[in-house]
Amino acid sequence: MSKDNVLIKFGNRIRLLRKQNDWSQEDLSFKSGFHRTYIGMIERGERNPSLKNISVFANTFNISLSELLKLEINEMG
Amino acid sequence: MSKDNVLIKFGNRIRLLRKQNDWSQEDLSFKSGFHRTYIGMIERGERNPSLKNISVFANTFNISLSELLKLEINEMG
Repeated sequence: MSKDNVLIKFGNRIRLLRKQNDWSQEDLSFKSGFHRTYIGMIERGERNPSLKNISVFANTFNISLSELLKLEINEMG
Repeated sequence: MSKDNVLIKFGNRIRLLRKQNDWSQEDLSFKSGFHRTYIGMIERGERNPSLKNISVFANTFNISLSELLKLEINEMG
């Protein structure tokens, strides 16, 4: 997995989990405490999140870090 | 999992994997391309690594990100 590719795949994973929860970016922003702009950039693979922030996403989705980082699970289309 | 706790657990995970591979911090430094000082700080939970750097560790250990982030697996003692 190339280094930049991992950001794209992480973004896709966040978007998929958000949609599975039927949350808007606004919802995820409110629940995580992150700015909506940051959420958008994360979903587009434009940010390189820290482990602490990745952990906040895992807590927000109520899944383990290991589950969150299953980046092979992608949204189709 | 508290936000700081995750750094400690990640550090323990890195140390465990390094020892399982029978690598010194110097070895891990050489293989990953990270400075030995950074490796030491990571293992002590004193750094908050980015997703890209976490990905470099996963590649260095030849495991998936999901496997690397199984932070429940701790070194005893």
